[in-house]
Amino acid sequence: QGTRDHSPAQAALRERLLGAVVSCFKRHGAAAIDTPVLELRETLMGKYGEDTKLIYELQDQGGELLALRYDLTVPFARYLAMNKVNNMKRYHIAKVYRRDNPATTRGRYREFYQCDFDIAGQFDPMIPDAECLKIVHEILSDLQLGDFVIKVNDRRILNGVFAICGVPESKFITACSTVDKLDKVPWDEVRSEMVGEKGLSPEAADRIGEYVQLHGGLELIERLLQDPKLSQNKLAKEGLGDMKLLFEYLTLFGITGKISFDLSLARGLDYYTGVIFEAVLLQQENEHVEELVGVGSVAGGGRYDGLVGMFDPKGRKVPCVGVSIGIERIFSILEQKLKASGEKLRTTETQVLVATPQKQLLAARLKLISELWDAGIKAEMLYKKDPKLLKQLQYCEDTGIPLAAIVGEQELADGVVKLRDVSTREEVRM
Amino acid sequence: QGTRDHSPAQAALRERLLGAVVSCFKRHGAAAIDTPVLELRETLMGKYGEDTKLIYELQDQGGELLALRYDLTVPFARYLAMNKVNNMKRYHIAKVYRRDNPATTRGRYREFYQCDFDIAGQFDPMIPDAECLKIVHEILSDLQLGDFVIKVNDRRILNGVFAICGVPESKFITACSTVDKLDKVPWDEVRSEMVGEKGLSPEAADRIGEYVQLHGGLELIERLLQDPKLSQNKLAKEGLGDMKLLFEYLTLFGITGKISFDLSLARGLDYYTGVIFEAVLLQQENEHVEELVGVGSVAGGGRYDGLVGMFDPKGRKVPCVGVSIGIERIFSILEQKLKASGEKLRTTETQVLVATPQKQLLAARLKLISELWDAGIKAEMLYKKDPKLLKQLQYCEDTGIPLAAIVGEQELADGVVKLRDVSTREEVRM
Repeated sequence: QGTRDHSPAQAALRERLLGAVVSCFKRHGAAAIDTPVLELRETLMGKYGEDTKLIYELQDQGGELLALRYDLTVPFARYLAMNKVNNMKRYHIAKVYRRDNPATTRGRYREFYQCDFDIAGQFDPMIPDAECLKIVHEILSDLQLGDFVIKVNDRRILNGVFAICGVPESKFITACSTVDKLDKVPWDEVRSEMVGEKGLSPEAADRIGEYVQLHGGLELIERLLQDPKLSQNKLAKEGLGDMKLLFEYLTLFGITGKISFDLSLARGLDYYTGVIFEAVLLQQENEHVEELVGVGSVAGGGRYDGLVGMFDPKGRKVPCVGVSIGIERIFSILEQKLKASGEKLRTTETQVLVATPQKQLLAARLKLISELWDAGIKAEMLYKKDPKLLKQLQYCEDTGIPLAAIVGEQELADGVVKLRDVSTREEVRM
Repeated sequence: QGTRDHSPAQAALRERLLGAVVSCFKRHGAAAIDTPVLELRETLMGKYGEDTKLIYELQDQGGELLALRYDLTVPFARYLAMNKVNNMKRYHIAKVYRRDNPATTRGRYREFYQCDFDIAGQFDPMIPDAECLKIVHEILSDLQLGDFVIKVNDRRILNGVFAICGVPESKFITACSTVDKLDKVPWDEVRSEMVGEKGLSPEAADRIGEYVQLHGGLELIERLLQDPKLSQNKLAKEGLGDMKLLFEYLTLFGITGKISFDLSLARGLDYYTGVIFEAVLLQQENEHVEELVGVGSVAGGGRYDGLVGMFDPKGRKVPCVGVSIGIERIFSILEQKLKASGEKLRTTETQVLVATPQKQLLAARLKLISELWDAGIKAEMLYKKDPKLLKQLQYCEDTGIPLAAIVGEQELADGVVKLRDVSTREEVRM
């Protein structure tokens, strides 16, 4: 339940998609690492808040207590701490596991791929953070998924807002998770959850509402930096200062058109400490997509400066910022687009089929195909002793093989091969 | 225990190795599929004989009872049966899991990659089987691992030998597993295990010994086809007939020089029904390898015509033949070779570092690098506001970046970039 096989057509589409993502990660100088699917249970515990219950545990068959990884971020932090690495720009594409309620039509599975790019190290502020946003922008543009916006916020700004609105610090995290719903439900509902369920005062909720419904660009950052209350809060001021720097860098990258500083963005995970961001596809008319798949966020990430320290015996900190591309949702969209377009994706790369028009010519086929393979040419033949020529040509059409190399009795006698272009039916002897 | 992280250097070496294997599989027209790491427990039970105890089981957290896959062959058979596929040439490269005693220096892990290529379908005899051997030959030649031999046998021949030597059918499998040790221990020891532990009569053991110590080529097949006893056994006769055909095809492929028909080859798994094979690296003097790693088999496979039927509700059979490349052992060898050679494998593909020779030029770097990324050029910069030029050039040397694009005040004023070849120190303004 919640897992799936990939057919050759799906595997081919996934290869194309991952190829685009990997080529972007490599363009930015990232190295690959790999970590086990299995982690010690204790490594994963206490990192995912309430979602810890979604972790798959292995049966105790003697030896270590193991679990399946929940994401690639915690294993990365564990890797950095264990190997005492202080600097690293890495990508990692691999499967992760969550005992969640699957919603497979919307691309939510229990086993799914994550595509992560992270920069670890002590650097000057916002330079790696800006690169993460540039990467999201490049990938979403490359994949031609339609219009999108990348929402940006900072945990420090959000916590500053809560503080000046009179929320006690113990309620920051729960207030955060309520604010995070603002992209799905109207403010009224969020407000009543704050007051009713979370126990904030109506006045505090109203004051929060004035802030978290704001979104904009540089001018909003400037305005908040002038805000008499917010500018008095140390954390918020730091966050706003960095946000301004971020927008400067994003302006130099030429991508601010797709960036929205959005105070309602909160992100679920506990470990974020600074900038957070999330890319959302915008609904649109699209002639190729009949029914719109309910996708929301297709990439997200942020800064987590405390996580590596949790795995270091001496608590040594390695600041990190990273982005995760929501490859399963993107895959669902591309799959649907492909289906609607009627395009047939080839599942193999075979360049030529070695064929014979008469019987008793298997030896000739085996000799020729062997020469082709040894020359690095992608070649196939049918596994029949005496297949009909029509069947062989039909196989080319079915699987998209562009050429047939035909050896018949005449060709053998003349020492040539007849090369046929399957679509035009043109033939040359060579 | 028995798992490992891959550092960037290891991940880069693995990418190179898997690239060579995948390119061979694609050259032979294989499509990729993917299946979950998780399988239903019942799918895996009763497929691996004694090794069933090595399967990792997941804890019962409610819902289905799950286990981690043990190999890629059983999931492939399950896939074919579930999707009613009758024909498929596929490759699958993924991790599998075994609760075995790890011997990591010899490349034996609890989590490891398998690289499988299989051909499923009802075809004329030995044509796909011959292609599997061709693939092993191509991959081992490509990877330049030194001299190797591919041992070939047939389960039907082996069972025929047991039958005519007076072994009761109930002891075929256990006799098989004893014979399989002949590549590691001398015949005397194998014989005493047969008589002592397995309860065969001394006469039966001696008669078996006369056969299973034989190895050779076409002439041996011909000789056994004339053997008065063996040629009377229906299964053995079939097996020998097919073996002869196989050698004909392998002759056309030009690879019989590396093939040995070896009657001692038995292979562990229960599901083989016909041809079986195993590639072994031959010990050799090699100036690059100081200490020889204890590798044996680096590829193996065979025909399994009954496995798919075990998953089909109607028992519908789909004959299969396939090969698994022992990628972890090969990886160990390549890693050791690389270390001995002193060659440093690059872990990134960055083509150019964007650098500045003076302070206050971060904006210029960000603008230029953004242009390079948008043009598809793999580019990096240091995440410092004002790094020293020496540090930037040192980074190029450390990570193998061949070019530095330098923008200083003069270049900015002139509207040019200084492109420096890091190794020759040549510079051009452009």
